[in-house]
Amino acid sequence: METDFNETPREYCGVMAVAGHSEAAKLAYLGLYALQHRGQESAGIVSSDGGNFYSQKGAGCVSDVFNRDVLDSLPGSIAIGHVRYSTTGSSTAENSQPIHVKYKGGRLAIAHNGNLTNSAQLKSELESRGAIFLTNTDSELLLHLIAHSPSNDFEEALYSSLIRLKGSYSIVLMRDNILYAMRDPRGFRPLCFGKLNGATIFASESCALDIIGAQLLRELKPGEIIKIDGDKISHNLPFAPSEQSFCVFEYIYFCRPDSIVEGKSVYDIRHRLVEHPAEADVVIAVPDSSNPAAIGFSKQSAIPFNHGMIRSHYVGRTFIQPSQQIRDFGARVKYNAVRGLLAGKRVVVVDDSIVRGTTSRQIVTMLRNAGAREIHFRSSAPPWVNPCYYGIDTPSEKELIANSNSVDEIRQFIGADTLGYISIEGLHRVMPRMLTYCNACFDGKYPGGKPNSIRKDFLEL
Amino acid sequence: METDFNETPREYCGVMAVAGHSEAAKLAYLGLYALQHRGQESAGIVSSDGGNFYSQKGAGCVSDVFNRDVLDSLPGSIAIGHVRYSTTGSSTAENSQPIHVKYKGGRLAIAHNGNLTNSAQLKSELESRGAIFLTNTDSELLLHLIAHSPSNDFEEALYSSLIRLKGSYSIVLMRDNILYAMRDPRGFRPLCFGKLNGATIFASESCALDIIGAQLLRELKPGEIIKIDGDKISHNLPFAPSEQSFCVFEYIYFCRPDSIVEGKSVYDIRHRLVEHPAEADVVIAVPDSSNPAAIGFSKQSAIPFNHGMIRSHYVGRTFIQPSQQIRDFGARVKYNAVRGLLAGKRVVVVDDSIVRGTTSRQIVTMLRNAGAREIHFRSSAPPWVNPCYYGIDTPSEKELIANSNSVDEIRQFIGADTLGYISIEGLHRVMPRMLTYCNACFDGKYPGGKPNSIRKDFLEL
Amino acid sequence: METDFNETPREYCGVMAVAGHSEAAKLAYLGLYALQHRGQESAGIVSSDGGNFYSQKGAGCVSDVFNRDVLDSLPGSIAIGHVRYSTTGSSTAENSQPIHVKYKGGRLAIAHNGNLTNSAQLKSELESRGAIFLTNTDSELLLHLIAHSPSNDFEEALYSSLIRLKGSYSIVLMRDNILYAMRDPRGFRPLCFGKLNGATIFASESCALDIIGAQLLRELKPGEIIKIDGDKISHNLPFAPSEQSFCVFEYIYFCRPDSIVEGKSVYDIRHRLVEHPAEADVVIAVPDSSNPAAIGFSKQSAIPFNHGMIRSHYVGRTFIQPSQQIRDFGARVKYNAVRGLLAGKRVVVVDDSIVRGTTSRQIVTMLRNAGAREIHFRSSAPPWVNPCYYGIDTPSEKELIANSNSVDEIRQFIGADTLGYISIEGLHRVMPRMLTYCNACFDGKYPGGKPNSIRKDFLEL
Amino acid sequence: METDFNETPREYCGVMAVAGHSEAAKLAYLGLYALQHRGQESAGIVSSDGGNFYSQKGAGCVSDVFNRDVLDSLPGSIAIGHVRYSTTGSSTAENSQPIHVKYKGGRLAIAHNGNLTNSAQLKSELESRGAIFLTNTDSELLLHLIAHSPSNDFEEALYSSLIRLKGSYSIVLMRDNILYAMRDPRGFRPLCFGKLNGATIFASESCALDIIGAQLLRELKPGEIIKIDGDKISHNLPFAPSEQSFCVFEYIYFCRPDSIVEGKSVYDIRHRLVEHPAEADVVIAVPDSSNPAAIGFSKQSAIPFNHGMIRSHYVGRTFIQPSQQIRDFGARVKYNAVRGLLAGKRVVVVDDSIVRGTTSRQIVTMLRNAGAREIHFRSSAPPWVNPCYYGIDTPSEKELIANSNSVDEIRQFIGADTLGYISIEGLHRVMPRMLTYCNACFDGKYPGGKPNSIRKDFLEL
Repeated sequence: METDFNETPREYCGVMAVAGHSEAAKLAYLGLYALQHRGQESAGIVSSDGGNFYSQKGAGCVSDVFNRDVLDSLPGSIAIGHVRYSTTGSSTAENSQPIHVKYKGGRLAIAHNGNLTNSAQLKSELESRGAIFLTNTDSELLLHLIAHSPSNDFEEALYSSLIRLKGSYSIVLMRDNILYAMRDPRGFRPLCFGKLNGATIFASESCALDIIGAQLLRELKPGEIIKIDGDKISHNLPFAPSEQSFCVFEYIYFCRPDSIVEGKSVYDIRHRLVEHPAEADVVIAVPDSSNPAAIGFSKQSAIPFNHGMIRSHYVGRTFIQPSQQIRDFGARVKYNAVRGLLAGKRVVVVDDSIVRGTTSRQIVTMLRNAGAREIHFRSSAPPWVNPCYYGIDTPSEKELIANSNSVDEIRQFIGADTLGYISIEGLHRVMPRMLTYCNACFDGKYPGGKPNSIRKDFLEL
Repeated sequence: METDFNETPREYCGVMAVAGHSEAAKLAYLGLYALQHRGQESAGIVSSDGGNFYSQKGAGCVSDVFNRDVLDSLPGSIAIGHVRYSTTGSSTAENSQPIHVKYKGGRLAIAHNGNLTNSAQLKSELESRGAIFLTNTDSELLLHLIAHSPSNDFEEALYSSLIRLKGSYSIVLMRDNILYAMRDPRGFRPLCFGKLNGATIFASESCALDIIGAQLLRELKPGEIIKIDGDKISHNLPFAPSEQSFCVFEYIYFCRPDSIVEGKSVYDIRHRLVEHPAEADVVIAVPDSSNPAAIGFSKQSAIPFNHGMIRSHYVGRTFIQPSQQIRDFGARVKYNAVRGLLAGKRVVVVDDSIVRGTTSRQIVTMLRNAGAREIHFRSSAPPWVNPCYYGIDTPSEKELIANSNSVDEIRQFIGADTLGYISIEGLHRVMPRMLTYCNACFDGKYPGGKPNSIRKDFLEL
Repeated sequence: METDFNETPREYCGVMAVAGHSEAAKLAYLGLYALQHRGQESAGIVSSDGGNFYSQKGAGCVSDVFNRDVLDSLPGSIAIGHVRYSTTGSSTAENSQPIHVKYKGGRLAIAHNGNLTNSAQLKSELESRGAIFLTNTDSELLLHLIAHSPSNDFEEALYSSLIRLKGSYSIVLMRDNILYAMRDPRGFRPLCFGKLNGATIFASESCALDIIGAQLLRELKPGEIIKIDGDKISHNLPFAPSEQSFCVFEYIYFCRPDSIVEGKSVYDIRHRLVEHPAEADVVIAVPDSSNPAAIGFSKQSAIPFNHGMIRSHYVGRTFIQPSQQIRDFGARVKYNAVRGLLAGKRVVVVDDSIVRGTTSRQIVTMLRNAGAREIHFRSSAPPWVNPCYYGIDTPSEKELIANSNSVDEIRQFIGADTLGYISIEGLHRVMPRMLTYCNACFDGKYPGGKPNSIRKDFLEL
Repeated sequence: METDFNETPREYCGVMAVAGHSEAAKLAYLGLYALQHRGQESAGIVSSDGGNFYSQKGAGCVSDVFNRDVLDSLPGSIAIGHVRYSTTGSSTAENSQPIHVKYKGGRLAIAHNGNLTNSAQLKSELESRGAIFLTNTDSELLLHLIAHSPSNDFEEALYSSLIRLKGSYSIVLMRDNILYAMRDPRGFRPLCFGKLNGATIFASESCALDIIGAQLLRELKPGEIIKIDGDKISHNLPFAPSEQSFCVFEYIYFCRPDSIVEGKSVYDIRHRLVEHPAEADVVIAVPDSSNPAAIGFSKQSAIPFNHGMIRSHYVGRTFIQPSQQIRDFGARVKYNAVRGLLAGKRVVVVDDSIVRGTTSRQIVTMLRNAGAREIHFRSSAPPWVNPCYYGIDTPSEKELIANSNSVDEIRQFIGADTLGYISIEGLHRVMPRMLTYCNACFDGKYPGGKPNSIRKDFLEL
């Protein structure tokens, strides 16, 4: 399962921030490059030289939006950046982040990863107080809250606004020449920070620190707010402690395997997401995201791993599906099976999740056509039963195949000989102990209760 | 003098609206095409099918922003459009219009031509009530006012917001499937309407009606608000009558000569903007904008008119000034003199205004190089002494050559043998009698007094 | 009538060359800018630093193809350039010029304006000797001839190749670091040269010299070949003298009016292309190309001239004709009538030619709708009866309205009250006496006889 | 090692052809998509409907050059396509393939993979017979030879031309509505064919057949020419048999691992390219190209395989290397190490070759920084000592690190603890027995002797 394919869950974004470096925007650019897997539909950077904000945003990948001239036009020693997946092409330009505004307290720019579950209520309340919304973003919502705060002290306004937010947020925010980074009290989404010489770097994942050679310090704590004002760095935990609800899917799928998240190696965790042994000749992965789990399955089962499916490096948005007599390309555009590794073999194929089941079915068909004698499909995520309200763009309940089908019905649908999901218990045996998690997509236990109003209807401005 | 050249005054925009036509966005597109001279740096259309708004905006000319696919993606029977000149490249995308928002009352989209003189005050007040500004536009300002209105009745909110505005505005505004068009009580900027079969069309100038074959009815009255709700059209004049302050420069320079503005032919007016006879052999215009005045000069003086300067049709923003050994192209890129018409001749050259004086000097040099024996420079506008606060982007006072130089000093600077500006009195002998005008750029009498805070500092978000 | 509109005759190109200037490519770029009216569908420059050739070609206007980086990548002190109108979009890239090749004698680059009438025969002969054709251009043809020449002396090869060519050519050709310019013995197409400090400049028209401040020396003589080799300039007339057949349409329509062609002012000639007086109130031009003739008509008739039609400056290739309910825009996209100058008036409208008659009809309709009481249509070219084989892209005979219709039938078709073409005799009273002309489009007397095989079928590679 | 990175050998192209399918161009497009790894700098398709050829070519990846409109403009039931790596940006447009021409025998279009070693001689000979060269391609060369053939029979001309060629060629060629595919007598480069319903498909690799669901039949035999004329398919072997010289690097690196080449699975071969056991804790690959060899090493050594390096999916040409204070990104932009898998470990890292050594050094540094205790570098190709003249774009001899350095010197340069190349003998134990190979890059034994004149100087037109 990959972020650029049809059946994929999509997360809204990745964030990056740099404070205290004379080429802040360029470092932000490099970091966004490493975070590209978290969103390919828009990218943006706002930098500040203390006096002014400088902004560049646009549709597409980081390499589409920025070039040398553009980077040279973003001076200043602090910068924030964002990559985003957006729902509709038409609104891409308007909803791209960071958002920057002028308000009574001066200039603010913000980039946000996550999803607020009470945005409709907050929006309605703000509208009743006269707010107008030019975008669909939670970022704009928070800026409205800050601006409507009765306090003239920025941090009072910020804290009292954050306390109104329900749901998930990992935010970087720039006020004139001060940088803030913050994470919701339940710590749904990752946000880490590190050092590069004298500069402080924040990023959704540590791979963005690696690319610039920065040293990872740690994840922000749930509810932590870090402020960088020149040389001064301060840490605040202004909210009542609550149990963390770290998104288990970040470990299962979203993060790059080379990232260290909450102090743990993503690769190492994925490596152990295996259950349901099978009698087979070879273990293969749906590349690249399922590679670690397939390797882990191979180790546990002593069945050899091999690269039985090859992934095209050149799949992009612009692939044209020839319409008439040429059909049913399905997964073939993205993957191809290695016949020699599969023909006559009993094959375990590991994928990271099953959403609608249609891609899984195409993969099974591809493997059968390549001669696989038996196909044992293994998902390194448990059955996905419930939609996410905390930042993953999931299909509706009825589109989730596991919502209304038994494992055996799903097996029949995808055409595998056996189908095994990791169990929720098995998942938690693997997940780092020091954290607590949000597994609502699997068990329906939404932290703080199921939201009444969902993101979906809010999205259609 | 032309809108795409260096020394030119720039107006902020042209607006267009269509109600009651199944191809509303396409008609808006055609209208914007005809209004392109009012702004080449961004263009946009928002359409409505009653249920949803559909938007396309972008940097560049109308033909850069729209193609068939884009137009096909803008359904609905009402649409508003906008062309704009923006001050900085970086903010073009964010400040392009129409702006469309969601607020407590539903959806609104707006396009605006003009400039508010109390925007800084209003903005400050709105900020104190919690507003955040994502753009620099007066359009966003009005939407904030509407949204902050205590009234839940849209038209009450609109009227009470408009009454707060000082300065100039010609606005088209779309609320769900209702279209409003309105003009400030002083009627600074033009806004006319007409009919095309059952549809109602609003446009900054009648040339936008001509291109779609619509029939011009009349200009909106100062302070008039027209509402189109399905088949119903209603007219309101909710404000106390004030004296009109129609921008005299619309007649002198901005409007296309083929437009009928306030019931009068622009061409015809320009035709008579002549004073200061000269003994000469030929009258020429700085093409194309000064053609009518030069023809008029020719008639009055019985000195034959000829096309002594040729204008390139292909001058655009992207001309590259070769930097090193090739210099001083100046006006040569845009104009070339017709030597045969000028050599040995005494030449009257008519231009529509003199701003900084540098272009005029280049023109005089070009004419001298083409052999002109005497050069009698005539401006069909009076000396431009004061900046405009009502929608023309003028340089600062000290850059306006007439602000601190006598006519003879200007003559010496540009290198002409004689220099004659039309007088303010002469100008008003030509202007239609039924109107009253804003001539602040010439006489410093700003309608309602000189604004304290000017647009300029507001612009730098 | 303008080069970018539907009913227009199209010429294939303009050429430019610079020798002996350290920024040769940049000067060529500027010159092409001034020659843009001779072709808007592709542009290209090849420069040479003696050792290497550097090339940039592409579809579109000069400003689309070149930017600063591109110009900086074209070093060397000699350069040739080309603008072109091509017949089909798909072949634009391949057929754009200059063409540069490697052959036994080294490197050659060539740009050509004109049309060979024996290209099919030459091509067939060359093919029989093994030539392959990658483009449709006459430029490639000449290069093949040179390469197939038995002589190893370049100039012998060039001369013996040129002598094989029938039809029209004005060519600039670069061999390593030597520049040649040449014109066919009948001198159909213009080609002039001038000086800029120590550099020599060749261009299709003198307006390209004006833009860079170069001094026009003279037109190349028919059959003249000029060679620039470092500081040495040599002139050759290797062919038997023949009577000149200068294209009369260059004076009537193609050249920019500010150009001096064959020593005469184009403007001045057009000015006198008037016949068929009319009783009328106003003389107007179809702008901009007919302005001079309309002025001339006004002078002769003492009927006042005015700008009764306004031309949009922003008409480009990308205008989208809305298809369904919005129709019959025709000329309205490009022109608009100034009602105040026309209503109730008897109008003389001067255009430079009538090709198919459809644009003329649209213009007449537009003038009638603007209230013109009588419309007297005058063409400053005689009836266009025959296709051109010397470089103007004309429709087939049957599409030429004057080929099979009387003047009165044409008058009826276009809807004018009277219609008057200048006579061939009248035309020649105006044309400079020292030249002889090709008027085949009017009188069917093709210099050297009507070509057997025409360009048309050759074009479809 | 990957085709889009700095130190990579580059091959010139991939070819694709379709005959007998109503959507030939669309199938060609899909096939090129699957062959994208063989060239990302230009792409093109020429189709034929029997009467005409239709062409689209351009710089960039397949998805940059084609869209739905373009594909719809390429009708006909036969089509050929090409992807290419070109040496200089400026010549990309001109040298992109397929090349299509008109010559005495009609229309031809050709696409070529390989490199002729006698192109300079042939070119010189052709030039002496009058040929001009508009491109640098071997494709143009062959077309000249055909056109210069004394025979009027196309196939005689083709065969007698092919017999002149030395070096490597896998060619698809279209003549009106007949398709030819051919492979040089030594069979350097791959070229296979298959069936899709009634259509015949040719492609450089079988992965291009897989993507359209075509059935692979077999590789063309060395020297085989296949002709498809409507329903008739004929096979010819017109040349004296010679020993095959299949490029061993196609198996080692170029081909996609999921391709079946010469009847053998590329993956399976790569899997066994292992030698030089090491005492270590983990085997990792430089992804993705070295995955199979690393898996093979793991199997042989029983040291566990893991994904210790992660490859960015978004690396493209447009990455901007920030220049000043941010340096030495090197391989970090493309790869990141997974610290958890490497820290404290003894690591075997397998790459497919070492060219200049600089990338290998960056990789070793990256692994050390990730905590690897020992680094054992293994190359699945033997030391690369000699340049290739048969279609791989290699650096000069002195840039090839193995040309002038011992294995131990290279080890020191890259910083590994041990370095082991596969031996030439070991390589041949793995390569399929039924073939014979070109290993000139390793052993200097150029089939038919070392070419006198090399491609390099020929390239600089």
